[in-house]
Amino acid sequence: MTERTDGIDPADVERVRVLAEAAGTASRRLALLSRAEKDAALHALADALVAATDDIVTANARDLERGRAQGMTESLQDRLRLDPPRVAAVAQALRDIAGLPDPVGEVVRGSTLANGLQIRQVRVPMGVVGMIYEARPNVTVDAAGLGLKSGNAVILRGGSAAADTNRALVSVLRAALEAQGLPPDAVSLLDGGHGVVRALMTARGLVDLLIPRGGTELIQAVVTGSTVPVIETGIGNCHVYVDARADLETALAIAVNSKTHRPSVCNAAESLLVHRAVADAFLPKVLAALSAEGVVLHTDAGAGAAAELAGVPHDTATAEHFATEFHGLEMSVGVVDDLDAALEHIRRYGSGHTEAIVTDDRAAARRFTAEVDAAAVMVNASTRFTDGGEFGFGAEIGISTQKLHARGPMALPELTSTKWVVEGDGQVRV
Amino acid sequence: MTERTDGIDPADVERVRVLAEAAGTASRRLALLSRAEKDAALHALADALVAATDDIVTANARDLERGRAQGMTESLQDRLRLDPPRVAAVAQALRDIAGLPDPVGEVVRGSTLANGLQIRQVRVPMGVVGMIYEARPNVTVDAAGLGLKSGNAVILRGGSAAADTNRALVSVLRAALEAQGLPPDAVSLLDGGHGVVRALMTARGLVDLLIPRGGTELIQAVVTGSTVPVIETGIGNCHVYVDARADLETALAIAVNSKTHRPSVCNAAESLLVHRAVADAFLPKVLAALSAEGVVLHTDAGAGAAAELAGVPHDTATAEHFATEFHGLEMSVGVVDDLDAALEHIRRYGSGHTEAIVTDDRAAARRFTAEVDAAAVMVNASTRFTDGGEFGFGAEIGISTQKLHARGPMALPELTSTKWVVEGDGQVRV
Repeated sequence: MTERTDGIDPADVERVRVLAEAAGTASRRLALLSRAEKDAALHALADALVAATDDIVTANARDLERGRAQGMTESLQDRLRLDPPRVAAVAQALRDIAGLPDPVGEVVRGSTLANGLQIRQVRVPMGVVGMIYEARPNVTVDAAGLGLKSGNAVILRGGSAAADTNRALVSVLRAALEAQGLPPDAVSLLDGGHGVVRALMTARGLVDLLIPRGGTELIQAVVTGSTVPVIETGIGNCHVYVDARADLETALAIAVNSKTHRPSVCNAAESLLVHRAVADAFLPKVLAALSAEGVVLHTDAGAGAAAELAGVPHDTATAEHFATEFHGLEMSVGVVDDLDAALEHIRRYGSGHTEAIVTDDRAAARRFTAEVDAAAVMVNASTRFTDGGEFGFGAEIGISTQKLHARGPMALPELTSTKWVVEGDGQVRV
Repeated sequence: MTERTDGIDPADVERVRVLAEAAGTASRRLALLSRAEKDAALHALADALVAATDDIVTANARDLERGRAQGMTESLQDRLRLDPPRVAAVAQALRDIAGLPDPVGEVVRGSTLANGLQIRQVRVPMGVVGMIYEARPNVTVDAAGLGLKSGNAVILRGGSAAADTNRALVSVLRAALEAQGLPPDAVSLLDGGHGVVRALMTARGLVDLLIPRGGTELIQAVVTGSTVPVIETGIGNCHVYVDARADLETALAIAVNSKTHRPSVCNAAESLLVHRAVADAFLPKVLAALSAEGVVLHTDAGAGAAAELAGVPHDTATAEHFATEFHGLEMSVGVVDDLDAALEHIRRYGSGHTEAIVTDDRAAARRFTAEVDAAAVMVNASTRFTDGGEFGFGAEIGISTQKLHARGPMALPELTSTKWVVEGDGQVRV
């Protein structure tokens, strides 16, 4: 605990301390498990979830009823809902994790030194990983499964909307772990008011890593208020830039897919930039296509003229529009003079998540990939591909937009640290 | 800037903002330099330092005089002193960095996805790296050199004791960069009072990474007070554990070397633990050897008896002794019942830096390396080997004791991040 705990209730600090120490003790056992032991546990956890479907669905129904009584929207209810098929899917995700390679024990690099010392850098679990997240109860199970597979104990702080569901899920997981002879404290739920969240964020030394997942406010609060190391799963203010030498059919498909395939998530594109040289040929088509998909358009002067021509509804784009991640069917559209202007715009407004260029010009593609500072840079591909599943990781705990430790989609290796093992025969420094 | 700037003078915040933005602009140019360009610059910087030896030594003399007037110890003066041979050595270190591989552009991993997308994870510079450090002026040049080689702009905040020296060094470096056609803002000195340090620590978004180097208080202040990502170069409360099946000659050499080779640094051993089974045979010898080197000994009951037998001065070790990094010729010595007890002691008191076991027993060695949670774990080797130079990195910016991003000795790759480059032919999500 540090001095930054000012204003936090000592009872909350103590509650977190007890939980984190228990998780730490559990993590030391998990660190030594073989992949076979962990995979067997994952399958047992999956079986236990399926066997407890009724209890889980009942608890979930209580959360849904409470939500409805408080005016929860249909869309949020849908995010919250766990029906039997979804419970089965969540269980299947655990089995899928069992099928992934174990990152623990990987030898990252090594060598034999001039004096004969053999050094190797090996992957080890982080230790105790905290997740602070909103809404979706499947995150509870995903986090537990990815944590277990990477040898970590997890402390879960879910959103209050899913409180009963999360309690039921964690109860099932803990009982199943115990039945497997594993420490139930490998998975813990952090209950309590807002004070315990601050206590968790400042439990440096007891908690090794914090991953927040949710809206901008949640993430920023954790990132700026934590003394525990954090991985920022940040804003996705993603751009698609259609260059002078773009194939316009390709550009149309990529622009529409990047915005509309799943508009609420972080890798959806929020802005479309079009090189002046192809604006006349391209904009009317793409604006019509976006509008037909229900996308609300904010256009600058150049794109506005094209919108008029295409007869699609639009309003005037402001700097604030260009700076906004809409999380929905809404997009800012602008015309740029050249690649330099596109790069400058992205540098100014981009959030370091995913940026895409559509071009057949090699030099333009090379400049874009070299100069854009983001977690992922696409050439002639939808921004929607920044995804652990799409990248072949087999899982994803979130997409990091920070530069330290992990950047882009995060899966099992990102939940590990390393240590150096040095084997000698009595060498000393001369 | 974040809300955590409360209490910081807006003038300091502005000063840092201007400096960090200029560094950011410079970093974008540095990110695109080839290794050849960077190496040529490093050699030019080295030449410039040597050419400016008189000015540097003169500035250093002013710092030394001011220090002496304030009662600075001989040992601290020695750390501060830059005479012509030391200036030459500092310049040579830059040439050595030129000889190292360039981490920027390394392809860490990559693959071709089922849909034909080619993804690759490439190393990129962090961007703007801040160093907050005390005393030794060669850190100024090392940081600038390692920063440049890894494509980063650096903001340097040295200790006030070396203020004139650091100003002279940075002035030479900036002029040399400019003469090479490179942005002088690649290397900046952050002058001003304590307020600018807090402003630097909270300049999240403008500064990408902070590395503190110095005493415990400095490091803890930065680690707990920063919103900018930090790498903790922490405490080295390192242990040497002599196991039941240790070769006692080897153990003697390792224990003495680990403590006395360079007692003030983080990888020096602070505690010696000896298995009960070899305590009688080993302790008198090792205590006599340590005492002969001037090591002040704090012994527990078991080790105290051996100290009496050996006739060496000692006093009673407290828990606080075992928890202390002495930074000098001082050591805690204890007898443990078995490997479990040694592991428990290290878990309780260790700072996660370097822990060593001396043993010929394979099972004990394997348990120790598997169960000790530290940046480096040694078997039959001195703790003094946790060092970038010794590990063959060719350089070292510090030794991280944290788990995120880097752990153990840090060199060029640790000053980089990565990004994903995705090359397609129009792929979209279905």
